[in-house]
Amino acid sequence: MSYARQMLNSYPLTFNVEASVLAATIDALKDCAQACTADAADDLSEQNVTALVKCIRLCLDCADVCAATLAVTSRQTEHDANVTKPLLEVCATTCKSCGDECERHAQMHEHCRVCAEACRRCERACRELVAAMK
Amino acid sequence: MSYARQMLNSYPLTFNVEASVLAATIDALKDCAQACTADAADDLSEQNVTALVKCIRLCLDCADVCAATLAVTSRQTEHDANVTKPLLEVCATTCKSCGDECERHAQMHEHCRVCAEACRRCERACRELVAAMK
Amino acid sequence: MSYARQMLNSYPLTFNVEASVLAATIDALKDCAQACTADAADDLSEQNVTALVKCIRLCLDCADVCAATLAVTSRQTEHDANVTKPLLEVCATTCKSCGDECERHAQMHEHCRVCAEACRRCERACRELVAAMK
Amino acid sequence: MSYARQMLNSYPLTFNVEASVLAATIDALKDCAQACTADAADDLSEQNVTALVKCIRLCLDCADVCAATLAVTSRQTEHDANVTKPLLEVCATTCKSCGDECERHAQMHEHCRVCAEACRRCERACRELVAAMK
Repeated sequence: MSYARQMLNSYPLTFNVEASVLAATIDALKDCAQACTADAADDLSEQNVTALVKCIRLCLDCADVCAATLAVTSRQTEHDANVTKPLLEVCATTCKSCGDECERHAQMHEHCRVCAEACRRCERACRELVAAMK
Repeated sequence: MSYARQMLNSYPLTFNVEASVLAATIDALKDCAQACTADAADDLSEQNVTALVKCIRLCLDCADVCAATLAVTSRQTEHDANVTKPLLEVCATTCKSCGDECERHAQMHEHCRVCAEACRRCERACRELVAAMK
Repeated sequence: MSYARQMLNSYPLTFNVEASVLAATIDALKDCAQACTADAADDLSEQNVTALVKCIRLCLDCADVCAATLAVTSRQTEHDANVTKPLLEVCATTCKSCGDECERHAQMHEHCRVCAEACRRCERACRELVAAMK
Repeated sequence: MSYARQMLNSYPLTFNVEASVLAATIDALKDCAQACTADAADDLSEQNVTALVKCIRLCLDCADVCAATLAVTSRQTEHDANVTKPLLEVCATTCKSCGDECERHAQMHEHCRVCAEACRRCERACRELVAAMK
């Protein structure tokens, strides 16, 4: 069982979303933030770095937005849906932009392929959590 | 001249938004993220901490969302308006929620009054930057 | 295989540390940062919140230090050991402080027990990576 | 008066360091984190980006370490010197590495010159705060 799930299971109050959906999103956000941080740096080691500038920039943005969304969704106490829902939507949009760009380089660079996969999974997870919050 | 403005002035390419509006937003985001981090911790030193739980939680969220928005707006290269604009809007919403809650404690706690002011200023700055991007 | 390990396996150049040790540290840092963020918020839902103020504060610090260490260790390109090693040492120290405090509340609060475990594992992983870098 | 100083002035308890020294460090950390985030992205807009890879990487690290140090120094409640002091020392070291590298590009790129200045100021401020904590 992931730490995210263990933490949710030990939360002293109740929350309105199914724990399995929330835990899956938290885990996807953790993985995506880290993969994007790594991919931006990996791109800098490639010979065709000028062709990867957009990819680097979007990976940096995606890492930052996922990190903020991860923190906000990790807090259950006094949860404010007016903040969480639009933030999850922006995060899904950012993962989409970043995943699209990474995918363009996936055949040439395996690290971009892995990162694109992490972005796709995170985009889906954010959208599923928004749907579950309705 | 703030470092944010100096950095914008030395950006090698052009950008579509007026530098003064962008710099004002970046400076407001820096101040708001730091004020919220400080206010959440200050609340923990108050005797009536149980009455401040919602304030602490919203300050932590606001600090995280402002930090991500600060990073994204600080990057000009390969700027993606599909990410930046909705992120600025979520940031304004978060500053509004946090500022409203801080204001409720402003008469009793000076640190909440200062933090509420930082949130109001940041909310306005984010909205003005969105307007300038149209 | 974790995303951290997949990203390391696809890094285009070589690095001086064994990938399995590095991946284990990255995974421990991800888990610890998230557990600490969650635990700080969980503490705010407890009735004896005043007894948990030190725990909250250390969890917030530990989350921030782990997040920075996670980002730095996720970047292989142009790695600077003068930054990484002392940062890993500070991170281990912070995990120790936070884990000790969480453990004091572990019998009363299950979320503090889980968080203490994440801190212990992360402390060990950071020290093992420092040892492997020598 | 900066928001950092206003927040310190409204802290409900006392702290052991002079507020002016602490506020100066907090302001320097805010500026350095933002300048490094901006400089890493500015470098990506330069034609000789391959010559700037080390600069980009160190700027990303410096932004992350400054952000964590900023958060930790912004919290006064239950301050733990065992965490804060070594973290400030690592932050000074990171600012030194990053400032040295930025300075190498300062004549060619004005944004690197401004960033180097922010790093130097932050390095000094961190060392002064450590000295004041003794």
